[in-house]
Amino acid sequence: MTSPLPADDPARPAPPAPGSAGSSAVRLRIDLAYDGSGFHGFARQRDVRTVQSVLEAALERLVGPVETAVAGRTDAGVHALGQVVSVDVPAGTRILGDLDRARTALDRLCGPEITIWSLRQVDPDFHARFSATRRRYRYRLADADALAPLARHDTWHVGPPRLDVSAMAEGGAHLLGEHDFASFCRRAGDGRLVRRIDRLEVRRALDLVVVEVNGPAFCHQMVRSIVGCLVAVGRGRRSPAQVAEALAARDRAAVGAIAPPHGLTLLGVDFAECP
Amino acid sequence: MTSPLPADDPARPAPPAPGSAGSSAVRLRIDLAYDGSGFHGFARQRDVRTVQSVLEAALERLVGPVETAVAGRTDAGVHALGQVVSVDVPAGTRILGDLDRARTALDRLCGPEITIWSLRQVDPDFHARFSATRRRYRYRLADADALAPLARHDTWHVGPPRLDVSAMAEGGAHLLGEHDFASFCRRAGDGRLVRRIDRLEVRRALDLVVVEVNGPAFCHQMVRSIVGCLVAVGRGRRSPAQVAEALAARDRAAVGAIAPPHGLTLLGVDFAECP
Repeated sequence: MTSPLPADDPARPAPPAPGSAGSSAVRLRIDLAYDGSGFHGFARQRDVRTVQSVLEAALERLVGPVETAVAGRTDAGVHALGQVVSVDVPAGTRILGDLDRARTALDRLCGPEITIWSLRQVDPDFHARFSATRRRYRYRLADADALAPLARHDTWHVGPPRLDVSAMAEGGAHLLGEHDFASFCRRAGDGRLVRRIDRLEVRRALDLVVVEVNGPAFCHQMVRSIVGCLVAVGRGRRSPAQVAEALAARDRAAVGAIAPPHGLTLLGVDFAECP
Repeated sequence: MTSPLPADDPARPAPPAPGSAGSSAVRLRIDLAYDGSGFHGFARQRDVRTVQSVLEAALERLVGPVETAVAGRTDAGVHALGQVVSVDVPAGTRILGDLDRARTALDRLCGPEITIWSLRQVDPDFHARFSATRRRYRYRLADADALAPLARHDTWHVGPPRLDVSAMAEGGAHLLGEHDFASFCRRAGDGRLVRRIDRLEVRRALDLVVVEVNGPAFCHQMVRSIVGCLVAVGRGRRSPAQVAEALAARDRAAVGAIAPPHGLTLLGVDFAECP
């Protein structure tokens, strides 16, 4: 149910040459959100319902068969508010004459679990995956006895005791900067697990504890592994310093259970040049 | 699918005499929330799943058969964050020895769509329906092109054009105070449709328009009828003054379509004496 490659590894296969779809192609950028609850993740897979398969099926009805590229390949159950996709369509495609209307049509075809925020033509050099310079993730936790029913869709209800947010922030600070995140990633061993975290914030917001993590790219299950480890710190089962030890171990076993997917949301993606 | 009696009419059947369950009974107050999406409303009905039937079935497993009273009898699809229920249980009931633990047990038995915030013993004079002095409702609207997927559960996506919030507030102000709300209620003709609205606020909150309405009691579909009427004002299809005319008409036909249930949430209930 999980994609075979690291989620946002920018070092993976070389980007298609600009204009690879031919000079008669037009590149489109799609900004979208989804409720990940009912999907087996973003990436297209055989025989299961994924965001990409639903999106591409909807696009096919509007413009014919296409292949999309995505900025953040989210796992099964993970949500997105600011996901970005790029896709090439033939230059003569009818929808190019009215992209606002095409957005509405695509939004409807995708159903209520996927929202199409915008659909616009971009420079052929723009690529949702390879042009992305920063991914921003948010994880929501609740440590009260009870959780409001509608919050269950995007919040991990860890329950009492009350999380020590200061200790979590102190532990998270050890992860800032560039490190080999082998301890926090699902697949190790190919030497591609060096990542950089530019921001890791833990804050209390009303009844919730919110963890926000930004970086150029993340490997598979990295944010959820970090959150799982920080929850152990928040509960006093690990010290903040033990987060640094877990990182240095470069061993998946040094990190505790990973946080479940439904608390995680891809908030947004930044690009070097805003196309 | 809708309950046969006005939702919160305080003038309806006389309250049971205090201690009517016998001197050996103990009265409990249950504060709860629910996601109304999957329920045919609060009130118990034959052959359909309602909040009351699920709650009473769960209570039965803990304390034996009981009948609950509720502060705000919400319709099918309407949510609650601060619903209040009262119920009598025999004085010797085992759970009375540890109500915190009983709350956890009840919360689990009710499933993820219902949250039990608290369970506590109250004075036998307390009655969730007849002791309530104010019900507070919130209605969420979205007037942007697109709606975040998870917001679809409790927000009516009316879509563009942008709602004129000032006009809606001006229209709503005509409903403040005590009036015969026959135009805004599902059932008319029995002379019991005089209600009082103490507060009606319309505000923009980020991408949403939020309507909050407080009053001692509401008749059936009253808040949703008010919101439907105010949306017509916000879209410029009615003037604010026409809200006063609709009220004066005392005729259901004078008010437009009612707003759908999923945007409505019972936020909370106030009681004269906090037990």
